[in-house]
Amino acid sequence: MTISTATYEQRRENVRKRLKDRGHPPLLVSFAANRYYLSGFELHDPQCNETAGWLIIDPAGRDFLLTDPRYHDAARKVWKEDDIFIYSGRKFDALREFFKLNGFKKISYDPKSINIFEHEKLNDFCELKPVSGLVEDLRLIKDETEIKLMEESCALNHKVYELLEPKLVPGRTEAEIAWDVEQLFRNNGASELSFPSIVGIGPNAALPHAIPGNDKLEDGSLVLIDMGGRVGDYCSDQTRTFWVGDKPSDRFLTVRDQVQEAQMEAIKVLRPGLPIQHAYHTAKAVFEKYGVEKYFTHSLGHGIGLETHEPPSVSPIASGELKPGMVITVEPGLYYSDWGGIRWEYMVLITEDGYKIL
Amino acid sequence: MTISTATYEQRRENVRKRLKDRGHPPLLVSFAANRYYLSGFELHDPQCNETAGWLIIDPAGRDFLLTDPRYHDAARKVWKEDDIFIYSGRKFDALREFFKLNGFKKISYDPKSINIFEHEKLNDFCELKPVSGLVEDLRLIKDETEIKLMEESCALNHKVYELLEPKLVPGRTEAEIAWDVEQLFRNNGASELSFPSIVGIGPNAALPHAIPGNDKLEDGSLVLIDMGGRVGDYCSDQTRTFWVGDKPSDRFLTVRDQVQEAQMEAIKVLRPGLPIQHAYHTAKAVFEKYGVEKYFTHSLGHGIGLETHEPPSVSPIASGELKPGMVITVEPGLYYSDWGGIRWEYMVLITEDGYKIL
Repeated sequence: MTISTATYEQRRENVRKRLKDRGHPPLLVSFAANRYYLSGFELHDPQCNETAGWLIIDPAGRDFLLTDPRYHDAARKVWKEDDIFIYSGRKFDALREFFKLNGFKKISYDPKSINIFEHEKLNDFCELKPVSGLVEDLRLIKDETEIKLMEESCALNHKVYELLEPKLVPGRTEAEIAWDVEQLFRNNGASELSFPSIVGIGPNAALPHAIPGNDKLEDGSLVLIDMGGRVGDYCSDQTRTFWVGDKPSDRFLTVRDQVQEAQMEAIKVLRPGLPIQHAYHTAKAVFEKYGVEKYFTHSLGHGIGLETHEPPSVSPIASGELKPGMVITVEPGLYYSDWGGIRWEYMVLITEDGYKIL
Repeated sequence: MTISTATYEQRRENVRKRLKDRGHPPLLVSFAANRYYLSGFELHDPQCNETAGWLIIDPAGRDFLLTDPRYHDAARKVWKEDDIFIYSGRKFDALREFFKLNGFKKISYDPKSINIFEHEKLNDFCELKPVSGLVEDLRLIKDETEIKLMEESCALNHKVYELLEPKLVPGRTEAEIAWDVEQLFRNNGASELSFPSIVGIGPNAALPHAIPGNDKLEDGSLVLIDMGGRVGDYCSDQTRTFWVGDKPSDRFLTVRDQVQEAQMEAIKVLRPGLPIQHAYHTAKAVFEKYGVEKYFTHSLGHGIGLETHEPPSVSPIASGELKPGMVITVEPGLYYSDWGGIRWEYMVLITEDGYKIL
């Protein structure tokens, strides 16, 4: 299953409608995931400081794809040749001519997606109007095809956990397990990982950003794994915490039960119209009941889709309400620096009347 | 071999000296590779729109690392606890207090590394002074340890080509070969790829940005491979073009000879003091001799180090001169859309009196 050309066109039409309704000038789309969402052109930039190209979505109807010669062929696969503009060498000199030729005197842009250098260069030949999060707002709500792709992506994550569990045996290092994860994802259909896997043994599991190292699994230890892969471009993200050996310690079972209870209580309240921060506070309340809330040190979760981290953030200060079609992670954790940590994570789709765990 | 704490301190001292000499206020370092170069803290941001943290390098002497709670432990490994500032939730409110407390009324920043949103927020409580490429200028010249790491990294690239060549047999797809490349790098010591591998069979080799697909190698076809891995954090980048089968066609041999001649002629002129664009024009002149220059469609190469693409660009409009300690790629190519393309790439260190191919 893939996103159709008609869908990309419809998405641009949705952008166009919003621009028109609000009286905004043509929108420059420079953030990679937004560009890809609206065109199917290049999900990734080659480096964070090097763009693969920009779109211009014009409320008047003609959209352009601007890129450099490396990407000309990739551009042709998704865009009309006449509406592709190729720059090389002195990019902003070329853009000046292009803007002039096409009468783009005013341009909307997202202030988080244009740097000061670019702004100054563009500002030299057109008037710039900041417009925040217009494409992100559309990406918040996943359509039917996106949901199916995310279900496939999440299903692969579950499968990788099944294949991985027998490999979690004493003597193996965090780095080896992380490489297992990557190979299992790739050999079973993922195009790449969604993010570098976290594999934390014992006290390393208490680090929310544990980089897999040479610490080894031991009988009677815990290991936290946070991993995801891309299927059909869509990310998955799942965390589980395993006990190595036959007899989980009482402490492991107690902490795991608390985390899972917090997770399920938070999931049970999810429904359209729920203030997003309420989900966080529901999980927190469970930890408060046990007097362990200070060991829950991060947000409850985040939106996920073309990016691992995308709006909405499910934090204590989140604004806004849940809507049908949102996909969020619910991933409470408890972390004890001298012992370890347990986190449990599900991806959850908000449905018309509640939720569905993917 | 790793970069020592003393080296990171010396690099910050070099930044400090430049700031002092030029009368600049403390420098905010936000670009990931620059941050890592000066601290050893987090080579990558989790996403291009999500930072792992910032540094402030103060000419007065005290440097700070600013990050969120996820990275607190990673920060402690490279930085004094007293000089780590942790923000969470409302980042810019926290930064306002931090700047006030530490008397940061003016801050230098790189205009390519701060977006409009961040600029506006920071500008609300401190005066911002654009300073371009100060850290990049230091990164241009590799020190002894960096050169050794890049030699190791490049040596692994050569080894991966040796291991890969027997796998280039009829019936295998571009995507399978790309996955071979990744596994060979990882299983032989690379921490990750430097960039997504390019594997282009036949006419696909004429696309400078060929995404490995399901086209299969055939007896009597060519395949272009452009690949690199990270060793000790440093990137390698090498392109070769192979003939599949026993008898390379005359055209393959002719084009390959032209490309290799252009490459060697360009390499032979490399020395400190050479205007960088001269290297490009030297390769181009070889293609002009054969009347094929219009099939050479990109720059000659680029700097490489902590990033695959870093200054200097070896383009027809490059400014500046080569200096000892620079490492650049030399990668001419000829591309015929109906037939295929051949590119050949070496990494070259500029030495005190000439060059060394890595």
